[in-house]
Amino acid sequence: MSQSPNTLLLDTVTYPSDLRKLDKSELRQLADELRAETIDAVGTTGGHLGSGLGVVELTVAIHYVFNTPEDRLVWDVGHQCYPHKILTGRRDRIRTLRQGGGLSGFTKRAESEYDPFGAAHSSTSISAALGFAVANKLNDKPGRGIAVIGDGAMSAGMAYEAMNNAEQAGNRLIVILNDNDMSIAPPVGGLSAYLARMVSSSEYLGLRNLASRISRKLSRRVHHGLEKAEEYARGMVTGGTLFEELGFYYVGPIDGHNLDHLIPVLENVRDSDQGPVLVHVVTQKGKGYAPAENSADKYHGVAKFDVITGEQKKSAGGPPAYQNVFGETLAKLAETDKRICAITAAMPSGTGVDRFAKAHPERSFDVGIAEQHGVTFAAGLAAQGMRPFAAIYSTFLQRAYDQVVHDVAIQNLPVRFAIDRAGLVGADGCTHAGAFDIAYLATLPNMVVMAAADEAELVHMTYTAAEYDHGPIAFRYPRGNGVGVPLPEVPQKLEIGKGRVVREGSKVAILSLGTRLAEALKAADQLEAKGLPTTVADMRFAKPLDTELIERLMRSHEVVVTVEEGAIGGLGAHVLTFASDEGLTDAGLKVRTMRLPDIFQDHDDPQRQYDEAGLNAPDIVATVLRALRHNSAGEDERVEEARA
Amino acid sequence: MSQSPNTLLLDTVTYPSDLRKLDKSELRQLADELRAETIDAVGTTGGHLGSGLGVVELTVAIHYVFNTPEDRLVWDVGHQCYPHKILTGRRDRIRTLRQGGGLSGFTKRAESEYDPFGAAHSSTSISAALGFAVANKLNDKPGRGIAVIGDGAMSAGMAYEAMNNAEQAGNRLIVILNDNDMSIAPPVGGLSAYLARMVSSSEYLGLRNLASRISRKLSRRVHHGLEKAEEYARGMVTGGTLFEELGFYYVGPIDGHNLDHLIPVLENVRDSDQGPVLVHVVTQKGKGYAPAENSADKYHGVAKFDVITGEQKKSAGGPPAYQNVFGETLAKLAETDKRICAITAAMPSGTGVDRFAKAHPERSFDVGIAEQHGVTFAAGLAAQGMRPFAAIYSTFLQRAYDQVVHDVAIQNLPVRFAIDRAGLVGADGCTHAGAFDIAYLATLPNMVVMAAADEAELVHMTYTAAEYDHGPIAFRYPRGNGVGVPLPEVPQKLEIGKGRVVREGSKVAILSLGTRLAEALKAADQLEAKGLPTTVADMRFAKPLDTELIERLMRSHEVVVTVEEGAIGGLGAHVLTFASDEGLTDAGLKVRTMRLPDIFQDHDDPQRQYDEAGLNAPDIVATVLRALRHNSAGEDERVEEARA
Repeated sequence: MSQSPNTLLLDTVTYPSDLRKLDKSELRQLADELRAETIDAVGTTGGHLGSGLGVVELTVAIHYVFNTPEDRLVWDVGHQCYPHKILTGRRDRIRTLRQGGGLSGFTKRAESEYDPFGAAHSSTSISAALGFAVANKLNDKPGRGIAVIGDGAMSAGMAYEAMNNAEQAGNRLIVILNDNDMSIAPPVGGLSAYLARMVSSSEYLGLRNLASRISRKLSRRVHHGLEKAEEYARGMVTGGTLFEELGFYYVGPIDGHNLDHLIPVLENVRDSDQGPVLVHVVTQKGKGYAPAENSADKYHGVAKFDVITGEQKKSAGGPPAYQNVFGETLAKLAETDKRICAITAAMPSGTGVDRFAKAHPERSFDVGIAEQHGVTFAAGLAAQGMRPFAAIYSTFLQRAYDQVVHDVAIQNLPVRFAIDRAGLVGADGCTHAGAFDIAYLATLPNMVVMAAADEAELVHMTYTAAEYDHGPIAFRYPRGNGVGVPLPEVPQKLEIGKGRVVREGSKVAILSLGTRLAEALKAADQLEAKGLPTTVADMRFAKPLDTELIERLMRSHEVVVTVEEGAIGGLGAHVLTFASDEGLTDAGLKVRTMRLPDIFQDHDDPQRQYDEAGLNAPDIVATVLRALRHNSAGEDERVEEARA
Repeated sequence: MSQSPNTLLLDTVTYPSDLRKLDKSELRQLADELRAETIDAVGTTGGHLGSGLGVVELTVAIHYVFNTPEDRLVWDVGHQCYPHKILTGRRDRIRTLRQGGGLSGFTKRAESEYDPFGAAHSSTSISAALGFAVANKLNDKPGRGIAVIGDGAMSAGMAYEAMNNAEQAGNRLIVILNDNDMSIAPPVGGLSAYLARMVSSSEYLGLRNLASRISRKLSRRVHHGLEKAEEYARGMVTGGTLFEELGFYYVGPIDGHNLDHLIPVLENVRDSDQGPVLVHVVTQKGKGYAPAENSADKYHGVAKFDVITGEQKKSAGGPPAYQNVFGETLAKLAETDKRICAITAAMPSGTGVDRFAKAHPERSFDVGIAEQHGVTFAAGLAAQGMRPFAAIYSTFLQRAYDQVVHDVAIQNLPVRFAIDRAGLVGADGCTHAGAFDIAYLATLPNMVVMAAADEAELVHMTYTAAEYDHGPIAFRYPRGNGVGVPLPEVPQKLEIGKGRVVREGSKVAILSLGTRLAEALKAADQLEAKGLPTTVADMRFAKPLDTELIERLMRSHEVVVTVEEGAIGGLGAHVLTFASDEGLTDAGLKVRTMRLPDIFQDHDDPQRQYDEAGLNAPDIVATVLRALRHNSAGEDERVEEARA
């Protein structure tokens, strides 16, 4: 392990107000200490490193120049906020990052007034900052909205929508484009190429030159009509940048690691009466830490590591990650099926699409942070006879919900949705949890919704989806590694809407969807030991339901419990609805549904999250015992001993 | 009524192949006849008129120049497709537009191979066309993707995402920007201002000039390195357009009503080996029909009308539309509450926000077709202490689902969602139906979900939402007019999570959510007449549930039926889940849930849609009787007589 870094100057700064007392000449040292502290902290906790290192100087400069928290600073995505947290009263807890009960790995309103808007999904910052700016304008109160957004995040439609609406904020809105030519993966698309051209074709301006250009641009006070004409001319005659065409004053590109440039430019922007302003800052992800600078992903997200060597703690090996089982299965299927394509929205390695892309580059599409486009593009491919797989995390598929409904489900097009990170996700917390996909997909006509109980099932489901051409089909699977079952040599085509009975009993039936199957089986063992023969079914499908199986089990068991890793409205709701439609519960059957709780669960160790959710074997046992002892006229008897 | 128009030339054209046999010199007459036929047909049926009239020449030109249906033509939104339908084998049914069993008012895959991709929501066309183009490229088959998209639709993030990904399609992708400076309402935002500057600062090019410029631009065959350098230069040195900066070859602006310009330009584009190309066409909405040209909304959507005078058939008067009750209530509340703001996404009159805007222009925000931005902007306003109302149709709120989850619900910010067009919507069909909002919102922690049973309830709910600062709150209400109850002088603050008993019985309880209440009351009368005293509750809240009321009714009635105008996963699912959690159904209570069916219902007369959905009083009665007679061990007895 390393020694704690030497941070004499940083030790004097708890809040930005302390920072503002420093002399400008001291800021370089402060930034260096802040960088060292960030590296050391993330070495201890793991987490996002490269993004934070890229904005150390920018973080110092913004808090030095602007009046945070009255000026509302919104970090897009938020994974670059560790240096910001250190400077805003949270240094004492920075080594609790992403741990249960500790600091969030993203910005979070509940944590600090310096986090006026939480994030974790990309490209929301300009909209939020505009909201702050406009509210203050309406109330004639001070306070700007400042959004710091990466070039990757700028490729999402939402950022464009916000820019398109920015003009009304005037000088109360400042957008800082943090251009590191990299989001999580290498950049894609026209915007990225455009930014690269801008940066490569212009040199960084010298300080004097820059300051005078900015002050000319922003401090003009001219007759309104003239100004208007000038504005027109700006776009048409001088050939404005894309940002100017959308109504911004563009300043840049600026070296984002040079405080001698950053500070006066931001001061100029702060003091101007013109706006909105877009400041184009060029940074280097992983800056100042050699192992990060030299790594392909710039240490975007890392495990705990040794600060001296940069070596990350290896995970224990074990079964393959679900995402890779998916990616490799799909790559293999595509060898003989030329119609298979894969689409990822800027998450090639997170979704396993990188493994597909390696084998089939021409049929692999990384659309950037553009889930909406990705899904409708897939619908277009499907309409022309291809077999597209849209591989998107559960939480990010929310971005394309309308496209799933309007372009895929209504038209009954066979788009395959490979939904990773379904269920709880541990350290990333509630913003990344995949809690709602069963509910929001299974409510749609035409949609088929599967969940894999283990990695072998995922192989079967990938194949089943490939072969299913009748309409949309989705299959969900969790973050992390499989359970260690052998992968099938030959994938099996599952019958649509049919579950499987894993274990036969007679008194209690557990209907499981997804990877809670292992806990259901454990629970069955415990129930059996208590004299309650227990059936366990892996439903495989939330839609269409295996109504035959459900009816059979309901007619032959005393208690039926559903278990799923999803919020209310999913398998349990569909089973109850079917059962009541058919009158299966009329005669006194006891049905219980187990699901994620009606709260946004904080980041924590996965096992503790499952405990909090009440989705482990003891919870299943307790639910069954409570149901059996329940007297509908009276009170529950609590069965706490079941957890013992 | 008018005489049918004289259409000698049009009578010879059933399919585009017929059109292509005509001489270019005949196309002007054909376009005139097509326009007359469109006007006459919409006069008979009502529907979208202005948009179609604006693209008559463009429709003729595209089908004349390109090889449809092999070239895949995708009309964005699709409401401008009536002339296209007339030219593509559907003229014989054009006077069934939007009628039950007749043609859809939008493009629809099931209708014709000339509709390769259906639409109705905006801004999907480029993504879909790119899918077609790429699929054909992969399979080495002919066939371009052609998207026709309006300037309003271009303001949505999804269109930007697609443009950002377009370069890979090369000359197989053609985007035709139909710039009429107007979507449904007047245009907003930076892009719109930019387009206006482009058009106003350049004259339409003369034909020879235009043709030579295009052919220079598109037919270059140069050394690859040179080409690359030229491409760089294009963006940086010459000051490319916004579209060129994203990787397009930009052609325009062109007069979209001048066939002598349109045809050669499109031929040039067709024959070029460069791309993707964006053709900027300037048109006039409502072109060629004086009453439309002179109307503020250019006859965007019209009732049946007299072709000679343009006079639209007045609706029967009657109770006010829900949207206007909302807009006026909000405007009144805002007189004393300076925190209230209203946000619409390009639907000021459809949502009633126009009435708010008239009284409070500075607190009214039309963000353009940008629901994602609109919701997060509202979240920013809420985080700064305002009381924002995001007034968005149920089906369009799907576009902002992730923002509802990530920016509003997780942060528990008090954004108010005024959800219009909830439930079935008649002639607009399934693409505009609001079927899923209860399911997709009620699954979210922190969210409050209300539905108004009538226009007086809507007044109360608007006020309740204004006063609720604890977190997000949504209230849904249908398309069309209220039921005629008097509007309250003083709005009432409803207790969160509490329903009301409208009528007390003892044997049957109907739990109604929303405007099906009237049918529930009718059903109760009929049940009472059969000796079944019936309780009817207006639940008001799908979330939080009135668990006290539900438990009381379940413990004191024999049959409990829920009724809602939404798909599976809504009120019924939540009631069943609560009841099974609590063991209320363990002892043999009969519960049934009535909801929208698991199909996408086609456009039709609303009453027939309700019949198809099975949500009218006879259906409720039949459900109750079936439940009562149901023997859980045996078969249902069908109670068809109940409908009689």
